[in-house]
Amino acid sequence: MNKLEKLFNPSSVVVIGASEETGKIGNIISKNLLELGYSGKVYFVNPKHEKLFNQDCYKKLSEIEDGVDLAIVAVPAKFVNEVIQDGANKIKNYVIISAGFSEIGEDGLKQEKELNKLAKSNQLNILGPNCLGFINPEMKLNASFGSGMTKEGNISFVSQSGALISALMDISIKESIGFSQIVSVGNKMDVDEVSMLEFLANDEKTKVIGMYLEGIKNGPDFISVVKKVSKIKPVVILKSGKTKKAQKAIFSHTGALAGSDEIMDAVFEKCGVIRAGDLEDFFGLLKLISNSKSDPDEKVVVLTNAGGVGVLTTDAFQNKEIKLGEISDEVKSELKSFLPAESSVENPIDLLGDTFEDRYQKTLEILEKQDKIKTIIAVLTPQNQTPVLKIAQALVQFKDKSQKNIVAVFVGGEKIDEALRILHENKVTVFSSPERAVNALNQYYFWKQKNDQGIVAEKIEINEERKEKALEIIKKAKEENREALLFNEASQIFNLYQIPCCKSWMINSGEDPVGDFNFPVVAKIDSDKVLHKSDQEALILNLKNEEDLNEATEKLSKNFPGEKIIIQEMIEKGAEIILGIKKDPIFGPVIIFGLGGIYTEVFQMIDLLILPSSREEISKRLMQSKIKFFFQGERGQKSYNLDEMTDILVRLQNLALEISEIKELDVNPLFIYNDGKSVLAVDIKIIF
Amino acid sequence: MNKLEKLFNPSSVVVIGASEETGKIGNIISKNLLELGYSGKVYFVNPKHEKLFNQDCYKKLSEIEDGVDLAIVAVPAKFVNEVIQDGANKIKNYVIISAGFSEIGEDGLKQEKELNKLAKSNQLNILGPNCLGFINPEMKLNASFGSGMTKEGNISFVSQSGALISALMDISIKESIGFSQIVSVGNKMDVDEVSMLEFLANDEKTKVIGMYLEGIKNGPDFISVVKKVSKIKPVVILKSGKTKKAQKAIFSHTGALAGSDEIMDAVFEKCGVIRAGDLEDFFGLLKLISNSKSDPDEKVVVLTNAGGVGVLTTDAFQNKEIKLGEISDEVKSELKSFLPAESSVENPIDLLGDTFEDRYQKTLEILEKQDKIKTIIAVLTPQNQTPVLKIAQALVQFKDKSQKNIVAVFVGGEKIDEALRILHENKVTVFSSPERAVNALNQYYFWKQKNDQGIVAEKIEINEERKEKALEIIKKAKEENREALLFNEASQIFNLYQIPCCKSWMINSGEDPVGDFNFPVVAKIDSDKVLHKSDQEALILNLKNEEDLNEATEKLSKNFPGEKIIIQEMIEKGAEIILGIKKDPIFGPVIIFGLGGIYTEVFQMIDLLILPSSREEISKRLMQSKIKFFFQGERGQKSYNLDEMTDILVRLQNLALEISEIKELDVNPLFIYNDGKSVLAVDIKIIF
Repeated sequence: MNKLEKLFNPSSVVVIGASEETGKIGNIISKNLLELGYSGKVYFVNPKHEKLFNQDCYKKLSEIEDGVDLAIVAVPAKFVNEVIQDGANKIKNYVIISAGFSEIGEDGLKQEKELNKLAKSNQLNILGPNCLGFINPEMKLNASFGSGMTKEGNISFVSQSGALISALMDISIKESIGFSQIVSVGNKMDVDEVSMLEFLANDEKTKVIGMYLEGIKNGPDFISVVKKVSKIKPVVILKSGKTKKAQKAIFSHTGALAGSDEIMDAVFEKCGVIRAGDLEDFFGLLKLISNSKSDPDEKVVVLTNAGGVGVLTTDAFQNKEIKLGEISDEVKSELKSFLPAESSVENPIDLLGDTFEDRYQKTLEILEKQDKIKTIIAVLTPQNQTPVLKIAQALVQFKDKSQKNIVAVFVGGEKIDEALRILHENKVTVFSSPERAVNALNQYYFWKQKNDQGIVAEKIEINEERKEKALEIIKKAKEENREALLFNEASQIFNLYQIPCCKSWMINSGEDPVGDFNFPVVAKIDSDKVLHKSDQEALILNLKNEEDLNEATEKLSKNFPGEKIIIQEMIEKGAEIILGIKKDPIFGPVIIFGLGGIYTEVFQMIDLLILPSSREEISKRLMQSKIKFFFQGERGQKSYNLDEMTDILVRLQNLALEISEIKELDVNPLFIYNDGKSVLAVDIKIIF
Repeated sequence: MNKLEKLFNPSSVVVIGASEETGKIGNIISKNLLELGYSGKVYFVNPKHEKLFNQDCYKKLSEIEDGVDLAIVAVPAKFVNEVIQDGANKIKNYVIISAGFSEIGEDGLKQEKELNKLAKSNQLNILGPNCLGFINPEMKLNASFGSGMTKEGNISFVSQSGALISALMDISIKESIGFSQIVSVGNKMDVDEVSMLEFLANDEKTKVIGMYLEGIKNGPDFISVVKKVSKIKPVVILKSGKTKKAQKAIFSHTGALAGSDEIMDAVFEKCGVIRAGDLEDFFGLLKLISNSKSDPDEKVVVLTNAGGVGVLTTDAFQNKEIKLGEISDEVKSELKSFLPAESSVENPIDLLGDTFEDRYQKTLEILEKQDKIKTIIAVLTPQNQTPVLKIAQALVQFKDKSQKNIVAVFVGGEKIDEALRILHENKVTVFSSPERAVNALNQYYFWKQKNDQGIVAEKIEINEERKEKALEIIKKAKEENREALLFNEASQIFNLYQIPCCKSWMINSGEDPVGDFNFPVVAKIDSDKVLHKSDQEALILNLKNEEDLNEATEKLSKNFPGEKIIIQEMIEKGAEIILGIKKDPIFGPVIIFGLGGIYTEVFQMIDLLILPSSREEISKRLMQSKIKFFFQGERGQKSYNLDEMTDILVRLQNLALEISEIKELDVNPLFIYNDGKSVLAVDIKIIF
């Protein structure tokens, strides 16, 4: 049994701060418990009253002798910890409505920390603080200060915003949407998105989990849990906070290229989470999945009574995974047998503007017999003689009998209002535009596909000996008050991780270059103050002999006094790749890879790799990436080595996971070749 | 006076095919004219009746002695031309409802051509055939077989789909949207999008023109007219037919890169047309523009009673032209003086979930005094105590007094229904999600910006002498049954247009190379059968001397017997650009330019140039293009020569407009340099 089972399905509830005074939160909650049909036992605590709502009122939690499954706390913040302390022995589940904790700043944060300590030491489950509460429609339990009750259903909605719960509940009444749980998580001190996912994954009433999140508390935990839960049921997340805030100075390409929202996208994609584009998409997806009778399918058939909207529906399929399915010749001739000659029996099937319900009905009957067709979109606009209501009823009848998924798109105003009500009540999902319908079906299908691929949960082994050696190098640099490694230090680390680097020699500015150089060579400044070497004439190429080299190092010494100079063999130019690591505050180290060179930021042909990933996942990701063309042998080019590139990313992942000191890492360029030569890191920047 | 003035504002109308029989189209139209309040004179024609609707019925049009402004034809297609022939002398304006013309195939097309001849020779204006008709709400004139009447207003809606008119009219009743004209253009034989634009541009009642188009009849006319009309009033187009159909074999990069929908996008962008993304965007934009009191502005202020939806609204501004404006310190302190401490006075201004109408009211009063704030989005979700109706009324009051634009976003269900009605009735535009609102404001602002830029209508002079010479070269190739030019022919044409080409020599396969070669050189096959030279080993690089060259030409001769071989000097590699011309069936020649080289299709960093364009426009377009970075000197690179590149595109435009025989043209690569060297076309393909 999940530890939250009793919190969300309690057979007895106590309200602390209960009140008979209208307008008080403790009053709203008490009345929600008493008046909406909850059949469990309800207790009240309020030191000022002997009786409330015609029953005994307790002074404090510890006075209640029966076991109580859940306590709802609605007293001012300053009293909350005391209340919990008092109850902690007997009562293990709490909803803390009270605001005034971490959301108000330092003082509140301090109190929340104490509360959390209480929770941990007493093994309590706490929803909130600073939340609206939750609603369990099957139990007719409204354990919140929101009003009303929704229908029972199979959608669980978890929200970081109470107002969105109010809005969705209001919409749900109008559109007959049913829920299994509606949960406001507030400050997410204890119960957070991860524990909700764990609980709802095994909640039999829940078919689809919808979440509105403004942040994610623990990135690695989230990844590990959500990818498992997504395999069991769809998780639809509306994640806000996309806009980039002004960031601090960024030292590397990687820092600039991997924004927090791009990372979020990559996490969702990796884990098979459906990310809703906006509020309407979010609500639409929840309804669609809630109502669907069978798994989403790639091929879709569209019926319409309006050519124009049919064309718009066809357009909506552009760049989508789902497709307009071919209608078989057999079906076409069946359709032709009763449809007017001007009808189209291609997909979309145009039933014409003068159709009554009969053509919809008969067409659906014919499609019902086709095993290959699993999803149907029925489009309608109200025209002069259109019997909108009867057509809606025909769709409902079909939906009741069939195992296929039918989705309606009705475009209109007053003439369709009553039809919408009937469709809503009978759980036919209806969208107000073809674009919304196709988009929702497509995202649902993405989940199915991702789910079928079978994501491997991978635990990456840490090589402690290697880690130790690498940390030693960074420690030395830190002792010199540096925040970045010199090239020769970075290449020592790369050697530990078997990522090949260009051979190099280092001298101090002013020193003469001495070494067994294989000319031609390049000379460049090695400094964390010089970000883009090509920008500042800190790089001199094609030095053919000792004389050239001496001249170059003198010039560099003069222009960049006090900096280190490195001399590298000129190597044959390969295709330029950028590799990077960025430490995300939520998800920890994230790898980027893509097209490198001086125009990296211009081309923006980069992808993210969320850790941990199995070798198989990395290889697949490479072949779906923006640089996949290198490994496909396009345009008559010999293809580059996918296995080798996969190895490099696997090793970079080891590096990222073992050396958590690294804030940003850039390899730009890493040369890759398609003539058998091994990859080579030419420039490396490691910031810690 | 526009020639369509009387068609759309007739003081008398005759229905041909009038009928008293319910269900007949001639009956619906007659009743629309008689029963909806049209005050003009109405005549009926039907050879089978003496009287209809208690008035005289004529046998044919020519019998009516009075002048009649407009005839509506609702007889079977086969009788239509006869009717028009009979009336053409006296009556100049027709709406032909009848279907059965070009839309049904060859026979219909023939009849439509005859009809068009009739129209031209008698200077008739014909709407249709195969249309729903039109509705002029100010005159209470429903000259269509759609039902009902909408409110009078300032939106003109022109549609290639009758069903969309029915849908929009139904929505308009629910949302109190008013129209100046609603026009179904049907087959667009005579009256098409261009004549409608010309008519509506000067129609004083029309503030915004909305069009649903499936195709555009005449591309160059459309461009020339719509760019002028867009300067006068916003033109919002929902263009369907985006999906790429399977195309015929494509011979050039350009052919593959410039799809017809990308060209449409570029045309709209050039001409300042607002392209609606989907049906809901379309309706939303029309309402927004219709209701707005002043020009759209870059800076927007958001008020909300829900933090979560506030964050989503902030997100919606990402990658938009419009921005959340800064709230001045003065305004902030005014706001703080009455808002609760927990409110946010940053933008979005969070009035908190427990707000009544008062905080909305006072905040709006304070914002009203700010000249710099012109656009306000008021967001609401219905929470426990939210007085939704009163807040809606507060917004209406503000809107009535203020010259600012106020837009509402109400997210909810039943609790907001009545408020929506009030907002609709009082012309406060309301959106169902923040994303829709921000998107519509952004597109409206795009129009304003584009309009302010001042597009120069440019007529390009044709150089007949040059044209003659170029055509001669193509003529010769045609005589040899070729569909493509050889490199040396293409470079002759480029010389005529002063686009520099690489020096080259041509030999036939099997011949020995003879020439004054400046080694190293390259040898390659010059054939329209070999599309991508690098794909098929048809290109041998870096031939250092005569021996190398001989060996190479022998190899090529062997592998590609019968083909021409060209020998070019190896030139220093520059940045690789692709240039191309594609002949679009609607818009004629279109130029593409972008990043060239072997990975052109992979990078897809190309832009389109719609012709004709002034030199200034071309230069501006280059600086907004995906390859603008070349001309900005990014990443420490010296910038490339914008003026030179502009010249090249100007010359390519001349070539495109003068040699209309060209179907596709590719230059790939064109080398450009940033060290003073002149651009150079290395490979040219011209297909005709």
